[in-house]
Amino acid sequence: MVRYHPDPENQFGVEMGVFKQLEAFASGDSLPLGDVLAELPWNADGLLPAIAQQHDSGEVLMLAWMNRTALDETLRTGRVCYWSRSRQALWRKGESSGQVQMLRELRLDCDGDTLLLKVDQTGPACHTGRRGCFYTRVDGDRVVVDQAVQIDPAELYGR
Amino acid sequence: MVRYHPDPENQFGVEMGVFKQLEAFASGDSLPLGDVLAELPWNADGLLPAIAQQHDSGEVLMLAWMNRTALDETLRTGRVCYWSRSRQALWRKGESSGQVQMLRELRLDCDGDTLLLKVDQTGPACHTGRRGCFYTRVDGDRVVVDQAVQIDPAELYGR
Repeated sequence: MVRYHPDPENQFGVEMGVFKQLEAFASGDSLPLGDVLAELPWNADGLLPAIAQQHDSGEVLMLAWMNRTALDETLRTGRVCYWSRSRQALWRKGESSGQVQMLRELRLDCDGDTLLLKVDQTGPACHTGRRGCFYTRVDGDRVVVDQAVQIDPAELYGR
Repeated sequence: MVRYHPDPENQFGVEMGVFKQLEAFASGDSLPLGDVLAELPWNADGLLPAIAQQHDSGEVLMLAWMNRTALDETLRTGRVCYWSRSRQALWRKGESSGQVQMLRELRLDCDGDTLLLKVDQTGPACHTGRRGCFYTRVDGDRVVVDQAVQIDPAELYGR
């Protein structure tokens, strides 16, 4: 069931965007996926940030970027595909290292400009061979590395 | 103790950036915070994405943006301050709603272009009055709202 809050931006009959509609939904209400994907607010480069979180432990593994093609492929295949800004190419996570990310759940934030991927990550997600990319912690006036390398990158990438 | 991996970009004596240095560190090694902050790769707008994660439950609450001023204030005060891209102003989380975020831990990713904030969030983090912003889940060919509003936004913002 669709519920609308009173919305001043809508009082003259302007069609309300999907994210404004979702805001006013009760838990359990839904919209067609295609309608939502059609209104994602891609940035000037056609990208959205995507947070990858290990589905069971809750660890935030990394943040990368997706374009529409990468998102469609991820939803279709269940294997996470990003857009590499440095290589300007689709980046099927694990294609070089073998350390793939399988999608367990995809979430959107309230205005649709960030994706949250609950994933099942094989081995290290980080190119340094650590489990995740957030291995440095601010500790007073120092920045401390507090995660060990699991697999040497030379082994991961055959360098 | 600082350890260096062999790095082809460094063989002619070019100074290695802090993030390349951190990559090669063992767990427990550290650098001065000021040196790291000085090399953060701010985007063209002077911003970095910052993920806010509830420190104990692991729930990813939201993603927002910080500039250097917001980051410095957050580290100094322990209360999270972002940069609002829509308002083009510092945004002390909770300044309108009272729902503040206190910083428990700040992490940087491997190339320093994303911040991870472990926070203690009072009440709803989302402007819709829900606990977090990621309240919509892709479920087959639908997008489903699966979190209820905790506090009516009219109450939060006195509208």
